[in-house]
Amino acid sequence: MSAYPKSVDSLIEMLSKIPSVGPKSAERIAHYVLKAQAFEIKNLADALTAVKQNIRNCSRCFNLAEEDLCFICQDFKRNSKLICVVEFSKDIVAIEKSQFEGRYHVLMGKISPISGIGPDQLRINELLHRVRSENLEEVLLATSADMEGEATAMYISEQLKPLNVKVSRIAYGIPVGSSLDYADQMTLSRAISGRRDF
Amino acid sequence: MSAYPKSVDSLIEMLSKIPSVGPKSAERIAHYVLKAQAFEIKNLADALTAVKQNIRNCSRCFNLAEEDLCFICQDFKRNSKLICVVEFSKDIVAIEKSQFEGRYHVLMGKISPISGIGPDQLRINELLHRVRSENLEEVLLATSADMEGEATAMYISEQLKPLNVKVSRIAYGIPVGSSLDYADQMTLSRAISGRRDF
Repeated sequence: MSAYPKSVDSLIEMLSKIPSVGPKSAERIAHYVLKAQAFEIKNLADALTAVKQNIRNCSRCFNLAEEDLCFICQDFKRNSKLICVVEFSKDIVAIEKSQFEGRYHVLMGKISPISGIGPDQLRINELLHRVRSENLEEVLLATSADMEGEATAMYISEQLKPLNVKVSRIAYGIPVGSSLDYADQMTLSRAISGRRDF
Repeated sequence: MSAYPKSVDSLIEMLSKIPSVGPKSAERIAHYVLKAQAFEIKNLADALTAVKQNIRNCSRCFNLAEEDLCFICQDFKRNSKLICVVEFSKDIVAIEKSQFEGRYHVLMGKISPISGIGPDQLRINELLHRVRSENLEEVLLATSADMEGEATAMYISEQLKPLNVKVSRIAYGIPVGSSLDYADQMTLSRAISGRRDF
Protein backbone atom coordinates (compact mmCIF):
# COMPACT_ATOMS: atom_id res chain seq x y z
CA MET A 1 0.00 0.00 0.00
CA SER A 2 1.27 3.43 -0.86
CA ALA A 3 1.91 6.01 1.82
CA TYR A 4 0.41 8.83 -0.27
CA PRO A 5 -3.14 10.15 -0.15
CA LYS A 6 -5.29 8.97 -3.05
CA SER A 7 -5.13 12.13 -5.17
CA VAL A 8 -1.33 12.24 -4.93
CA ASP A 9 -1.15 8.55 -5.84
CA SER A 10 -3.27 9.00 -8.90
CA LEU A 11 -1.22 12.00 -10.05
CA ILE A 12 1.98 9.96 -9.66
CA GLU A 13 0.42 7.11 -11.63
CA MET A 14 -0.53 9.40 -14.51
CA LEU A 15 2.85 11.10 -14.57
CA SER A 16 4.62 7.72 -14.64
CA LYS A 17 2.85 6.90 -17.91
CA ILE A 18 4.66 9.74 -19.70
CA PRO A 19 7.62 8.38 -21.63
CA SER A 20 10.86 9.83 -20.23
CA VAL A 21 9.22 10.28 -16.80
CA GLY A 22 10.04 7.27 -14.63
CA PRO A 23 8.29 6.47 -11.33
CA LYS A 24 10.98 8.30 -9.38
CA SER A 25 10.65 11.49 -11.44
CA ALA A 26 6.88 11.22 -11.19
CA GLU A 27 7.21 11.28 -7.41
CA ARG A 28 9.53 14.28 -7.57
CA ILE A 29 7.13 16.15 -9.81
CA ALA A 30 4.28 15.34 -7.41
CA HIS A 31 6.32 16.80 -4.54
CA TYR A 32 6.87 19.93 -6.61
CA VAL A 33 3.11 20.13 -7.15
CA LEU A 34 2.48 19.77 -3.42
CA LYS A 35 4.93 22.54 -2.62
CA ALA A 36 4.04 24.96 -5.41
CA GLN A 37 1.53 27.77 -5.12
CA ALA A 38 -2.01 26.86 -6.18
CA PHE A 39 -1.98 29.43 -9.00
CA GLU A 40 1.21 27.94 -10.47
CA ILE A 41 -0.40 24.53 -10.71
CA LYS A 42 -3.58 26.00 -12.12
CA ASN A 43 -1.48 27.70 -14.82
CA LEU A 44 0.26 24.42 -15.58
CA ALA A 45 -3.06 22.56 -15.82
CA ASP A 46 -4.43 25.29 -18.08
CA ALA A 47 -1.32 25.18 -20.27
CA LEU A 48 -1.80 21.43 -20.72
CA THR A 49 -5.41 21.75 -21.81
CA ALA A 50 -4.64 24.82 -23.95
CA VAL A 51 -2.17 22.78 -25.98
CA LYS A 52 -4.81 20.16 -26.69
CA GLN A 53 -7.40 22.78 -27.56
CA ASN A 54 -5.30 25.17 -29.63
CA ILE A 55 -2.92 23.00 -31.56
CA ARG A 56 -3.87 21.62 -34.95
CA ASN A 57 -1.89 20.72 -38.06
CA CYS A 58 -1.09 23.42 -40.59
CA SER A 59 -3.44 22.94 -43.53
CA ARG A 60 -0.57 23.31 -45.98
CA CYS A 61 2.49 21.64 -44.46
CA PHE A 62 1.06 19.74 -41.45
CA ASN A 63 3.41 21.39 -38.99
CA LEU A 64 1.96 22.25 -35.56
CA ALA A 65 -0.17 25.38 -35.84
CA GLU A 66 -2.55 27.48 -33.83
CA GLU A 67 -4.20 28.97 -36.89
CA ASP A 68 -5.04 27.54 -40.29
CA LEU A 69 -1.42 28.00 -41.41
CA CYS A 70 1.65 27.51 -39.21
CA PHE A 71 3.92 30.48 -38.55
CA ILE A 72 6.45 29.25 -41.10
CA CYS A 73 3.89 29.02 -43.91
CA GLN A 74 2.68 32.48 -42.89
CA ASP A 75 6.19 33.95 -43.11
CA PHE A 76 6.57 35.62 -46.52
CA LYS A 77 10.27 36.23 -46.02
CA ARG A 78 11.06 32.53 -46.27
CA ASN A 79 12.15 30.90 -49.49
CA SER A 80 8.93 29.54 -50.95
CA LYS A 81 10.69 27.65 -53.75
CA LEU A 82 12.37 25.17 -51.44
CA ILE A 83 10.62 22.77 -49.10
CA CYS A 84 12.16 20.39 -46.67
CA VAL A 85 10.28 17.12 -46.16
CA VAL A 86 10.42 15.73 -42.62
CA GLU A 87 8.78 12.85 -40.80
CA PHE A 88 7.47 14.71 -37.78
CA SER A 89 6.86 18.28 -36.74
CA LYS A 90 9.46 17.91 -33.98
CA ASP A 91 12.07 17.52 -36.75
CA ILE A 92 11.20 21.08 -37.80
CA VAL A 93 12.16 22.29 -34.33
CA ALA A 94 15.56 20.69 -34.79
CA ILE A 95 16.11 22.01 -38.33
CA GLU A 96 14.99 25.53 -37.39
CA LYS A 97 18.08 25.72 -35.17
CA SER A 98 20.20 25.59 -38.33
CA GLN A 99 20.20 28.21 -41.09
CA PHE A 100 17.46 26.65 -43.23
CA GLU A 101 15.29 29.33 -44.83
CA GLY A 102 12.82 27.34 -46.88
CA ARG A 103 9.52 25.86 -45.85
CA TYR A 104 8.52 22.39 -44.75
CA HIS A 105 6.29 19.46 -45.40
CA VAL A 106 5.54 17.05 -42.56
CA LEU A 107 4.81 13.48 -43.66
CA MET A 108 3.53 12.53 -40.21
CA GLY A 109 5.52 9.32 -40.18
CA LYS A 110 7.64 7.18 -42.45
CA ILE A 111 7.01 4.09 -44.53
CA SER A 112 7.25 1.18 -42.14
CA PRO A 113 5.97 -2.23 -43.21
CA ILE A 114 6.52 -3.59 -39.68
CA SER A 115 4.16 -0.99 -38.17
CA GLY A 116 1.81 -1.34 -41.15
CA ILE A 117 2.45 2.19 -42.38
CA GLY A 118 2.42 2.50 -46.15
CA PRO A 119 2.69 5.61 -48.39
CA ASP A 120 -1.07 6.17 -48.21
CA GLN A 121 -0.97 6.79 -44.46
CA LEU A 122 1.54 9.59 -44.96
CA ARG A 123 1.03 13.09 -46.37
CA ILE A 124 2.73 12.18 -49.66
CA ASN A 125 -0.20 12.96 -51.94
CA GLU A 126 -0.42 16.37 -50.33
CA LEU A 127 3.28 16.84 -51.06
CA LEU A 128 2.82 15.94 -54.74
CA HIS A 129 -0.08 18.36 -54.90
CA ARG A 130 2.09 21.13 -53.44
CA VAL A 131 4.87 20.45 -55.92
CA ARG A 132 2.37 20.78 -58.75
CA SER A 133 0.62 23.88 -57.47
CA GLU A 134 3.30 25.89 -55.64
CA ASN A 135 5.85 26.14 -58.45
CA LEU A 136 8.62 24.68 -56.27
CA GLU A 137 12.22 24.50 -57.40
CA GLU A 138 13.59 22.01 -54.91
CA VAL A 139 12.38 19.36 -52.52
CA LEU A 140 14.91 18.50 -49.83
CA LEU A 141 14.22 15.08 -48.33
CA ALA A 142 15.13 15.15 -44.64
CA THR A 143 13.61 11.90 -43.49
CA SER A 144 15.77 10.13 -40.95
CA ALA A 145 18.92 8.25 -41.84
CA ASP A 146 17.63 4.84 -40.88
CA MET A 147 16.28 2.19 -43.23
CA GLU A 148 12.68 3.30 -43.09
CA GLY A 149 13.53 6.98 -43.53
CA GLU A 150 15.74 6.03 -46.45
CA ALA A 151 12.99 3.93 -48.06
CA THR A 152 10.56 6.80 -47.59
CA ALA A 153 12.97 9.22 -49.30
CA MET A 154 13.45 6.74 -52.12
CA TYR A 155 9.73 6.29 -52.60
CA ILE A 156 9.07 10.03 -52.64
CA SER A 157 11.89 10.74 -55.09
CA GLU A 158 10.36 8.18 -57.44
CA GLN A 159 7.01 9.93 -57.20
CA LEU A 160 8.61 13.31 -57.83
CA LYS A 161 10.56 12.27 -60.94
CA PRO A 162 7.82 13.13 -63.47
CA LEU A 163 7.19 16.50 -61.84
CA ASN A 164 10.30 18.30 -63.01
CA VAL A 165 11.55 19.47 -59.62
CA LYS A 166 15.00 19.16 -58.17
CA VAL A 167 15.09 16.50 -55.44
CA SER A 168 17.87 16.52 -52.87
CA ARG A 169 18.67 14.46 -49.80
CA ILE A 170 20.02 15.80 -46.53
CA ALA A 171 23.71 14.85 -46.32
CA TYR A 172 25.12 12.11 -44.18
CA GLY A 173 26.51 14.46 -41.64
CA ILE A 174 23.97 13.07 -39.25
CA PRO A 175 25.05 9.81 -37.66
CA VAL A 176 23.51 6.91 -39.54
CA GLY A 177 20.82 5.11 -37.60
CA SER A 178 20.03 7.94 -35.21
CA SER A 179 16.94 10.12 -35.24
CA LEU A 180 16.96 13.83 -36.19
CA ASP A 181 16.18 15.34 -32.82
CA TYR A 182 19.38 13.96 -31.30
CA ALA A 183 21.53 15.82 -33.83
CA ASP A 184 23.33 18.95 -32.72
CA GLN A 185 23.01 22.30 -34.47
CA MET A 186 26.39 22.16 -36.21
CA THR A 187 25.80 18.70 -37.61
CA LEU A 188 22.41 19.75 -38.88
CA SER A 189 23.82 22.88 -40.57
CA ARG A 190 26.54 20.85 -42.28
CA ALA A 191 24.07 18.24 -43.34
CA ILE A 192 21.85 20.86 -44.93
CA SER A 193 24.59 22.85 -46.71
CA GLY A 194 26.17 19.61 -47.97
CA ARG A 195 22.97 18.25 -49.46
CA ARG A 196 23.28 16.36 -52.74
CA ASP A 197 21.10 15.53 -55.71
CA PHE A 198 19.06 12.47 -54.99
CA MET B 1 12.98 32.36 -31.85
CA SER B 2 11.42 29.05 -31.03
CA ALA B 3 9.89 26.88 -33.71
CA TYR B 4 6.92 25.91 -31.54
CA PRO B 5 3.49 27.50 -31.50
CA LYS B 6 2.94 29.79 -28.55
CA SER B 7 0.88 27.45 -26.40
CA VAL B 8 3.45 24.66 -26.78
CA ASP B 9 6.23 27.08 -25.93
CA SER B 10 4.54 28.25 -22.79
CA LEU B 11 3.86 24.66 -21.68
CA ILE B 12 7.55 23.81 -22.20
CA GLU B 13 8.57 26.88 -20.24
CA MET B 14 6.35 25.92 -17.28
CA LEU B 15 7.51 22.31 -17.31
CA SER B 16 11.17 23.41 -17.36
CA LYS B 17 10.63 25.19 -14.05
CA ILE B 18 9.92 21.90 -12.29
CA PRO B 19 13.04 20.72 -10.47
CA SER B 20 14.23 17.41 -11.97
CA VAL B 21 12.64 18.30 -15.33
CA GLY B 22 15.29 19.81 -17.61
CA PRO B 23 14.52 21.70 -20.84
CA LYS B 24 15.02 18.52 -22.90
CA SER B 25 12.59 16.51 -20.75
CA ALA B 26 10.13 19.41 -20.85
CA GLU B 27 10.18 19.20 -24.65
CA ARG B 28 9.67 15.44 -24.56
CA ILE B 29 6.73 15.79 -22.18
CA ALA B 30 5.23 18.45 -24.48
CA HIS B 31 5.51 16.02 -27.40
CA TYR B 32 3.75 13.40 -25.32
CA VAL B 33 0.99 15.92 -24.63
CA LEU B 34 0.68 16.70 -28.35
CA LYS B 35 0.39 13.02 -29.20
CA ALA B 36 -1.85 11.92 -26.35
CA GLN B 37 -5.63 11.74 -26.49
CA ALA B 38 -7.43 14.89 -25.34
CA PHE B 39 -9.14 13.02 -22.48
CA GLU B 40 -5.80 11.76 -21.14
CA ILE B 41 -4.48 15.30 -20.90
CA LYS B 42 -7.71 16.51 -19.36
CA ASN B 43 -7.36 13.78 -16.71
CA LEU B 44 -3.79 14.84 -16.05
CA ALA B 45 -4.76 18.50 -15.72
CA ASP B 46 -7.61 17.53 -13.38
CA ALA B 47 -5.28 15.37 -11.29
CA LEU B 48 -2.92 18.33 -10.88
CA THR B 49 -5.62 20.68 -9.67
CA ALA B 50 -7.21 17.94 -7.51
CA VAL B 51 -3.96 17.58 -5.59
CA LYS B 52 -3.89 21.29 -4.84
CA GLN B 53 -7.55 21.30 -3.85
CA ASN B 54 -7.70 18.11 -1.80
CA ILE B 55 -4.40 17.91 0.00
CA ARG B 56 -3.94 19.53 3.36
CA ASN B 57 -1.79 18.73 6.38
CA CYS B 58 -3.05 16.25 8.95
CA SER B 59 -4.23 18.28 11.94
CA ARG B 60 -2.38 15.95 14.31
CA CYS B 61 0.90 14.94 12.67
CA PHE B 62 1.13 17.31 9.63
CA ASN B 63 1.49 14.45 7.16
CA LEU B 64 -0.28 14.91 3.82
CA ALA B 65 -3.99 14.23 4.23
CA GLU B 66 -7.25 14.48 2.34
CA GLU B 67 -9.34 14.61 5.49
CA ASP B 68 -8.78 16.19 8.88
CA LEU B 69 -6.52 13.29 9.89
CA CYS B 70 -4.11 11.45 7.57
CA PHE B 71 -4.66 7.75 6.93
CA ILE B 72 -1.91 6.80 9.39
CA CYS B 73 -3.42 8.78 12.25
CA GLN B 74 -6.77 7.22 11.36
CA ASP B 75 -5.38 3.70 11.50
CA PHE B 76 -6.18 2.22 14.93
CA LYS B 77 -4.02 -0.83 14.34
CA ARG B 78 -0.83 1.21 14.49
CA ASN B 79 1.22 1.56 17.65
CA SER B 80 -0.01 4.81 19.15
CA LYS B 81 2.70 4.86 21.87
CA LEU B 82 5.56 5.41 19.43
CA ILE B 83 5.98 8.34 17.10
CA CYS B 84 8.68 8.92 14.55
CA VAL B 85 9.69 12.55 14.01
CA VAL B 86 10.64 13.44 10.43
CA GLU B 87 11.44 16.63 8.58
CA PHE B 88 9.08 16.27 5.64
CA SER B 89 6.06 14.19 4.71
CA LYS B 90 8.05 12.58 1.91
CA ASP B 91 10.27 11.01 4.58
CA ILE B 92 7.18 9.13 5.75
CA VAL B 93 6.86 7.59 2.30
CA ALA B 94 10.43 6.29 2.65
CA ILE B 95 10.00 4.98 6.20
CA GLU B 96 6.68 3.30 5.36
CA LYS B 97 8.63 0.96 3.08
CA SER B 98 10.29 -0.42 6.21
CA GLN B 99 8.47 -2.28 8.97
CA PHE B 100 7.77 0.75 11.15
CA GLU B 101 4.39 0.42 12.86
CA GLY B 102 4.18 3.58 14.93
CA ARG B 103 2.85 6.96 13.95
CA TYR B 104 4.58 10.12 12.79
CA HIS B 105 5.15 13.78 13.42
CA VAL B 106 6.24 16.01 10.55
CA LEU B 107 8.31 19.03 11.56
CA MET B 108 7.95 20.63 8.11
CA GLY B 109 11.63 21.45 7.95
CA LYS B 110 14.74 21.45 10.08
CA ILE B 111 16.55 24.07 12.11
CA SER B 112 18.71 25.97 9.66
CA PRO B 113 20.26 29.30 10.68
CA ILE B 114 21.50 29.85 7.11
CA SER B 115 17.94 29.69 5.73
CA GLY B 116 16.62 31.61 8.73
CA ILE B 117 14.60 28.66 10.05
CA GLY B 118 14.49 28.47 13.83
CA PRO B 119 12.57 26.09 16.14
CA ASP B 120 9.51 28.37 16.07
CA GLN B 121 9.01 27.85 12.33
CA LEU B 122 8.81 24.10 12.85
CA ARG B 123 6.03 21.99 14.37
CA ILE B 124 7.99 21.41 17.59
CA ASN B 125 5.47 22.95 19.98
CA GLU B 126 2.82 20.71 18.44
CA LEU B 127 5.12 17.75 19.09
CA LEU B 128 5.57 18.70 22.75
CA HIS B 129 1.83 19.07 23.06
CA ARG B 130 1.31 15.59 21.60
CA VAL B 131 3.84 14.06 23.99
CA ARG B 132 1.97 15.61 26.91
CA SER B 133 -1.52 14.69 25.75
CA GLU B 134 -1.15 11.37 23.92
CA ASN B 135 0.58 9.39 26.66
CA LEU B 136 3.47 8.43 24.36
CA GLU B 137 6.19 5.98 25.37
CA GLU B 138 8.82 6.73 22.77
CA VAL B 139 9.80 9.47 20.35
CA LEU B 140 12.10 8.27 17.56
CA LEU B 141 13.98 11.18 16.00
CA ALA B 142 14.45 10.47 12.30
CA THR B 143 15.64 13.86 11.11
CA SER B 144 18.35 13.63 8.47
CA ALA B 145 21.95 12.70 9.21
CA ASP B 146 23.42 16.06 8.22
CA MET B 147 24.43 18.87 10.55
CA GLU B 148 21.08 20.62 10.52
CA GLY B 149 19.10 17.42 11.02
CA GLU B 150 21.45 16.53 13.86
CA ALA B 151 21.03 19.95 15.50
CA THR B 152 17.27 19.65 15.16
CA ALA B 153 17.30 16.23 16.84
CA MET B 154 19.50 17.63 19.61
CA TYR B 155 17.20 20.58 20.19
CA ILE B 156 14.08 18.43 20.32
CA SER B 157 15.66 15.92 22.70
CA GLU B 158 16.48 18.80 25.07
CA GLN B 159 12.87 19.93 24.94
CA LEU B 160 11.62 16.42 25.61
CA LYS B 161 13.84 15.77 28.64
CA PRO B 162 11.40 17.10 31.27
CA LEU B 163 8.50 15.18 29.73
CA ASN B 164 9.48 11.70 30.88
CA VAL B 165 9.38 9.99 27.49
CA LYS B 166 11.99 7.74 25.91
CA VAL B 167 13.82 9.55 23.13
CA SER B 168 15.70 7.55 20.48
CA ARG B 169 17.61 8.44 17.32
CA ILE B 170 17.59 6.50 14.07
CA ALA B 171 20.87 4.53 13.74
CA TYR B 172 23.80 5.59 11.63
CA GLY B 173 25.64 2.94 9.68
CA ILE B 174 26.42 1.28 6.42
CA PRO B 175 23.49 1.11 4.01
CA VAL B 176 22.24 -2.46 3.68
CA GLY B 177 23.57 -4.09 0.54
CA SER B 178 26.33 -1.58 -0.03
CA SER B 179 29.96 -2.43 0.24
CA LEU B 180 32.30 -1.04 2.87
CA ASP B 181 34.58 0.77 0.48
CA TYR B 182 31.78 3.06 -0.69
CA ALA B 183 31.14 4.30 2.83
CA ASP B 184 32.72 7.56 3.90
CA GLN B 185 34.92 7.80 6.98
CA MET B 186 32.25 9.50 9.07
CA THR B 187 29.67 6.82 8.36
CA LEU B 188 32.19 4.09 9.10
CA SER B 189 33.17 5.64 12.43
CA ARG B 190 29.52 5.89 13.41
CA ALA B 191 28.80 2.35 12.23
CA ILE B 192 31.66 1.04 14.35
CA SER B 193 30.88 3.03 17.47
CA GLY B 194 27.22 2.02 17.15
CA ARG B 195 28.08 -1.70 16.83
CA ARG B 196 25.85 -4.30 18.42
CA ASP B 197 26.27 -7.82 19.76
CA PHE B 198 26.00 -10.39 17.03
